[in-house]
Amino acid sequence: MTTSTVPETPAAGWRATGVAPPEPEELERLDAWWRAANYLSVGQIYLLDNPLLREKLTPEHVKPRLLGHWGTTPGLNFLYAHLNRAIAQRQQPTVYVTGPGHGGPGLVASAYLDGTYSEVYSDITQDTEGVRRLFRQFSFPGGIPSHVAPETPGSIHEGGELGYALSHAYGAAFDNPDLLVAAVVGDGEAETGPLATSWHSNKFLNPAQDGAVLPILHLNGYKIANPTVLARIPQEELHDLMVGYGYKPYFFEGGFDEDESPLEVHRRFAALLDEALDEIAAIKARAADGDLTRPTWPMIVFRTPKGWSGPAEIDGKKTTGSWRAHQVPLANARDTPEHLQVLETWLRSYRPEELFDDEGRVLPEITALAPHGDLRMSATPHANGGLLLKDLRLPDFREYAVDVPVPGGSTAEAPRVLGQWLTDVIRLNPHTFRIFGPDEVASNRLQAVYETTDKQWNAEYLGPDVDEHMARAGRVMEMLSEHQVQGWLEGYLLTGRHGLLTSYEAFIHIIDSMFNQHAKWLKVTNDIPWRRPIASLNYLLSSHVWRQDHNGFSHQDPGFIDHVVNKKAEIVRVYLPPDANTLLSTYDHCLRSRQYVNVVVSGKQPSPNWLDMPSAVEHCTRGLGIWEWAGTEEPGTTPDVVLGCAGDVPTMEVLAAADILRRELPDLKVRVVNVVDLMRLQDAKEHPHGLPDREFDGLFTADRPVIFAYHGYPWLIHRLTYRRTGHDHWHVRGYKEEGTTTTPFDMVMLNDLDRYHLVIDVIDRVPSLGTTQAGLRQRMQDARVRARAWTREHGDDIPEVRDWVWPDAQDQADSGQVGATLGTGGDNE
Amino acid sequence: MTTSTVPETPAAGWRATGVAPPEPEELERLDAWWRAANYLSVGQIYLLDNPLLREKLTPEHVKPRLLGHWGTTPGLNFLYAHLNRAIAQRQQPTVYVTGPGHGGPGLVASAYLDGTYSEVYSDITQDTEGVRRLFRQFSFPGGIPSHVAPETPGSIHEGGELGYALSHAYGAAFDNPDLLVAAVVGDGEAETGPLATSWHSNKFLNPAQDGAVLPILHLNGYKIANPTVLARIPQEELHDLMVGYGYKPYFFEGGFDEDESPLEVHRRFAALLDEALDEIAAIKARAADGDLTRPTWPMIVFRTPKGWSGPAEIDGKKTTGSWRAHQVPLANARDTPEHLQVLETWLRSYRPEELFDDEGRVLPEITALAPHGDLRMSATPHANGGLLLKDLRLPDFREYAVDVPVPGGSTAEAPRVLGQWLTDVIRLNPHTFRIFGPDEVASNRLQAVYETTDKQWNAEYLGPDVDEHMARAGRVMEMLSEHQVQGWLEGYLLTGRHGLLTSYEAFIHIIDSMFNQHAKWLKVTNDIPWRRPIASLNYLLSSHVWRQDHNGFSHQDPGFIDHVVNKKAEIVRVYLPPDANTLLSTYDHCLRSRQYVNVVVSGKQPSPNWLDMPSAVEHCTRGLGIWEWAGTEEPGTTPDVVLGCAGDVPTMEVLAAADILRRELPDLKVRVVNVVDLMRLQDAKEHPHGLPDREFDGLFTADRPVIFAYHGYPWLIHRLTYRRTGHDHWHVRGYKEEGTTTTPFDMVMLNDLDRYHLVIDVIDRVPSLGTTQAGLRQRMQDARVRARAWTREHGDDIPEVRDWVWPDAQDQADSGQVGATLGTGGDNE
Ligand SMILES: Cc1ncc(C[n+]2csc(CCOP(=O)(O)OP(=O)(O)O)c2C)c(N)n1
Ligand SMILES: Cc1ncc(C[n+]2csc(CCOP(=O)(O)OP(=O)(O)O)c2C)c(N)n1
Ligand SMILES: [Mg+2]
Ligand SMILES: [Mg+2]
Repeated sequence: MTTSTVPETPAAGWRATGVAPPEPEELERLDAWWRAANYLSVGQIYLLDNPLLREKLTPEHVKPRLLGHWGTTPGLNFLYAHLNRAIAQRQQPTVYVTGPGHGGPGLVASAYLDGTYSEVYSDITQDTEGVRRLFRQFSFPGGIPSHVAPETPGSIHEGGELGYALSHAYGAAFDNPDLLVAAVVGDGEAETGPLATSWHSNKFLNPAQDGAVLPILHLNGYKIANPTVLARIPQEELHDLMVGYGYKPYFFEGGFDEDESPLEVHRRFAALLDEALDEIAAIKARAADGDLTRPTWPMIVFRTPKGWSGPAEIDGKKTTGSWRAHQVPLANARDTPEHLQVLETWLRSYRPEELFDDEGRVLPEITALAPHGDLRMSATPHANGGLLLKDLRLPDFREYAVDVPVPGGSTAEAPRVLGQWLTDVIRLNPHTFRIFGPDEVASNRLQAVYETTDKQWNAEYLGPDVDEHMARAGRVMEMLSEHQVQGWLEGYLLTGRHGLLTSYEAFIHIIDSMFNQHAKWLKVTNDIPWRRPIASLNYLLSSHVWRQDHNGFSHQDPGFIDHVVNKKAEIVRVYLPPDANTLLSTYDHCLRSRQYVNVVVSGKQPSPNWLDMPSAVEHCTRGLGIWEWAGTEEPGTTPDVVLGCAGDVPTMEVLAAADILRRELPDLKVRVVNVVDLMRLQDAKEHPHGLPDREFDGLFTADRPVIFAYHGYPWLIHRLTYRRTGHDHWHVRGYKEEGTTTTPFDMVMLNDLDRYHLVIDVIDRVPSLGTTQAGLRQRMQDARVRARAWTREHGDDIPEVRDWVWPDAQDQADSGQVGATLGTGGDNE
Repeated sequence: MTTSTVPETPAAGWRATGVAPPEPEELERLDAWWRAANYLSVGQIYLLDNPLLREKLTPEHVKPRLLGHWGTTPGLNFLYAHLNRAIAQRQQPTVYVTGPGHGGPGLVASAYLDGTYSEVYSDITQDTEGVRRLFRQFSFPGGIPSHVAPETPGSIHEGGELGYALSHAYGAAFDNPDLLVAAVVGDGEAETGPLATSWHSNKFLNPAQDGAVLPILHLNGYKIANPTVLARIPQEELHDLMVGYGYKPYFFEGGFDEDESPLEVHRRFAALLDEALDEIAAIKARAADGDLTRPTWPMIVFRTPKGWSGPAEIDGKKTTGSWRAHQVPLANARDTPEHLQVLETWLRSYRPEELFDDEGRVLPEITALAPHGDLRMSATPHANGGLLLKDLRLPDFREYAVDVPVPGGSTAEAPRVLGQWLTDVIRLNPHTFRIFGPDEVASNRLQAVYETTDKQWNAEYLGPDVDEHMARAGRVMEMLSEHQVQGWLEGYLLTGRHGLLTSYEAFIHIIDSMFNQHAKWLKVTNDIPWRRPIASLNYLLSSHVWRQDHNGFSHQDPGFIDHVVNKKAEIVRVYLPPDANTLLSTYDHCLRSRQYVNVVVSGKQPSPNWLDMPSAVEHCTRGLGIWEWAGTEEPGTTPDVVLGCAGDVPTMEVLAAADILRRELPDLKVRVVNVVDLMRLQDAKEHPHGLPDREFDGLFTADRPVIFAYHGYPWLIHRLTYRRTGHDHWHVRGYKEEGTTTTPFDMVMLNDLDRYHLVIDVIDRVPSLGTTQAGLRQRMQDARVRARAWTREHGDDIPEVRDWVWPDAQDQADSGQVGATLGTGGDNE
């Protein structure tokens, strides 16, 4: 173990001088706090009544259903106690992230000892009745969840799905230069993929501008039913692993030696923690002096027995220090006198009589350990990010509009246009907005932002000819891990900042489950009055299913939308802007919103612009609407058919079909409806954005065929509209899982979403056309055959498709103002 | 670097003695192979014609759309060449797994050089025309994908979504003691979570009974648009990381020193590879001698320039050795004479005139490098697992039946019963069947299998009191990473074996995207005649949404089913067996099936048994059916209402509702239909299991209300049935994202899936009941209020619910034969 060299003048907020080793009574206090927290944890898991054991324990005092996790809890409590001491001494703002969040009782107990719990939940008072309620509510119907949850003060990290503790911690630390994030990683959790790569976050942290993360590997040896890998490799291997990850590991072992007094264990840990924090302070001081090279941050390996301080054996089987301590060790505490006795002995081993006064209030000497006010980890505003959240300063997106002289009269790569606006968003918000991506920010066409910012990178830097747009500080965070960037962004948002994540549409499924957990978090916080709203989680999926020209089938999957809409309607929003101006308008809306997950799908390849900015704003405000210029309706009459579309590629195919129809069947009354906000399709009862039935029936009619061309899996449109009056007349085309590496038009043909097939659909569905237009139908079939054959011959799309423009734009096209729309740019163009 | 000690008698298949360092002409040959493979790779990306450059290159020879990835390809080709030499010398069966499978042209080129390609695709002949076709088809409409894909001979690992190379490799190695799996890991890929944890696979490999994996970290420094983390940490850090992961790293660096001749580079790498393979042979020999302790397996760090051998600069920008080489470096080869010239120079640098004879056939000296027949990596049967697949020997599942004297007359934890049968499956198939789980095999109640097998574990072993059921060899594979176990299982199946994965229903979303890729693989292989069918990928999700009593909201999500049914109908099957005997029958079917993904959801908590084995077999064979004993139909008449159910918890609620209805409304004609095979609900045109309309209408009626109680999100049932005649009369109840830690009955009440609400639904939907049964309706509402209040008071479910049994089973219940069905077992019970 090394000794730290503490600089004379520490960085603001990072005190290291004057920190004294703990006095004997401080050690007593640490131990008393720990015992109190453990007592309150065990009490939550088991006790319905008799909270302070002022009477003998009887079966009626025990809960009928024992639900919770003990094993990790004493470790979390121990760390909380020691962090408290350090925070109080150093006045160090700190967020506590607990990977093993199944140790919910521990965090609740600590917040109760802190006082925060009673401040936030007035019913859980600081007296015997309060303790009784605290115990009873835990994992109890109508009470609180068994895991760390939004309900838990001080948490930004829900227990449940393991793997994201460090990504969340680093996300919280970005742009919080004075914040310490103490992040406990379970040794089981450490086996998950996301966690295993998240150690590398240290290559992306700027030691001056960002805060510090202190990872603490909770090496309690076991997970649910097995030993852990990291506990069963030689200590040197674990040491090398952590060094290889770029950390300086501090090894601590406690709780195994029965001859060592608890106070001595506390003394050793307090010293070790001081050393690690002094080292962080030294790093921060060096950084403040301008040394921004990647430091070797400390981390702690905390090897202690699982279920530490619990019963050593139960029914003759080793419990403490084994996986058997994971959940509720005494399953039969209520039913067998033996187990009841073990439980009582266990509870009394914490000497509750020394911890609570006659009224059931925790003794002030114990609570004196904690820091005050916002410095309490359970009360830090960073863990209730909405408290700190400020609106972004947003430049007027209208000023970034592309020029659209007539519909289809110009082309753009929509996200590239968005990038221009984002560049100024970054300029105006240099500390509260970041863009996250798995090595795809340029591929997804946001590279304009590099005009004003860089990719933050703190590993080795070779020079500008290969390391373009990389710097020690920057607003773009790129690592090839969807988990990592998603986790970082979540941590960043939960602590009160703003951001977006751009990823390939197919691979965003990688974080399906992380999205789930975040959406659940938002849903629950909506019902917690003291949790303040946070900025929405924004996705931009611009490498989408239809234009995987380079990549083929493995990259083709529009199902993230389906996944997302399974979550609560009040949380999720899905937008499919058909062109550049609608994308700008949509994203402006997203960056202003709160408490949502906004999924925006918008292709990156060159594509026609349909709406000028005023029309785009109106269209996006409505969320959907008739494009009168595209249809052939007669005012005052119901159309014969409605062509609906959602998504850029389907929109182009629908317009091309409308073009054919107006030429071939000039008398047919066609209405074209474009949908930007997918949730408008749903019933107003099902989704806050849902269109009222009357309005919906007006738009889509109640009895005319609707041919709907949709970006994703067609059944989603049925699902959204099945309650609508006219639903039986809806015929939806979309991606039906036919893909490969081919031309853009071949892709839509493979899935029957092409213009020719849409015309066929119209003929097949409009009663009057079935027999009369068999000739046109046949020509459409032939056009498909011809278009396919052309691709096989030329490797490219047939000119009549490739060069098609909306008829009003023919002049622009002829004079070369409309770029090719079926070109394929590479990843870095 | 260490020298290996090669034992006198190497293990079978692992020759190390007599391996000579390469002669000079062997080095020439290696280099010629490498040049040929590179030439064929570049040709695939760029050339439409003039394949052997027998004429000057003109723009017409260049493809109109340039789609593919060059950067990783020369490295993959280099390794292929060297592995070839080693395989030929050692006669070592080898599978080549390439993480950077976007380097598709390389694998195709190598398989062409091997001869395999022409054997499999007769049109791609070994002559100039064949080369022309080989080039043309690549990334071309109607041709082959740009990535390594099922179409690529020798592949078990699709390019596309990065992260699973090592998990697949280890999965392939399990139970293949004589197999070497050479696994290339991209340095970008190494940043993904799944890859970062998959290095730890070495703690789960048995050196005698399993094969060997040689990981090769392809440290070419860059990913799409950024440097990689592992390339930008000091070499010592990378060394420590690999040592920390338990490997012995061999560092190779080549291609940077312009003064070093290619032959010298080859000599150095051949020597290094020999050393690594000798070391593996030594490990295998020690293992054959009985030393099964975890060896320190070698791995290779292969540091070479990205795009090695390509143009150093393009347009004045560094290309080779940078991220700019990632995709297609000369985007304008067809359009600008400068780029065309660069392309021609590049192609000619491989000296094609020295590689092909006049007919365009690769010179025999070059192809002589390759091993023969099945030893060719492109032809190994292990990479076409169906060739090696043998049926499992399956014990008669009927013999494992639980006794069901009357419906509801006994209870069981269904997966525990399944576990008994699986125990014998393992006994009968000791080398070809494994169970995979993320630390949840016991929690998911399959622990009976430990009667006959153990969890395979090669990290430190402490002794039986904590390390129950762990051994150096065993059929159960547990690591706390859903990615890892999914990847292992995929590798195991793709190489011709059988298995299942058990996980929590909510967290199986973690591998949504891996499932996607596997399902796509199966879909594509169905159309490739030379690919033989493999065993299905079987899931068992027994910790499901309704019984997360311990865990609460974060663990509640039934959406994996929705995700799965987005994939092609011919691939996916979803089963919801309502009890133990139906689960047995279902799983027997799953383990016999091929080329599917079977998702089986079946709760782990005690639950009533409804069907005796003969009825269960009939019911599962039908996939759905009327439970006549549960309804109150009159023969010959149409029922007034149909109660449908799918899933164990909904089935119980429907039966309890049917019980209330028969008591309260004895004249109401109720039909109860249970669905095991969810795909039966779909149209026969949409899914091979779909029920014909006539049969469907017969079962569910075309005009009576159907109240359907479903396990998951209700809209899925609408999606599956919206084309059915009677769909407008369907009212579906399911999970609507309302969850928390509470009692089982409170959970169903939160989602309006409870018996009382189902009765209310019947009253609301059956026209004759609306006004006449307002009293009963009110009593049902009151019953809900009472049940909820009871939970708040007692923390448990109200006795009338908790103790409810199907009326026919009252005798059994009274005599204690029916266990409580709402108890909650812990994770390790
Ligand atoms: C991704 C994921 N897979 C599986 C689980 C189920 N699970 C809950 S706790 C646990 C063991 C955790 O072990 P560890 O991280 O070491 O925590 P501790 O030992 O401190 O309880 C598992 C596997 C989960 N919560 N998340
Ligand atoms: C999970 C995932 N995220 C993103 C991508 C997009 N992508 C394709 S190739 C690539 C870079 C790969 O770099 P590396 O693994 O180093 O391969 P190589 O340098 O050998 O090409 C990325 C990010 C992907 N294929 N998979
Ligand atoms: Mg642990
Ligand atoms: Mg690379």
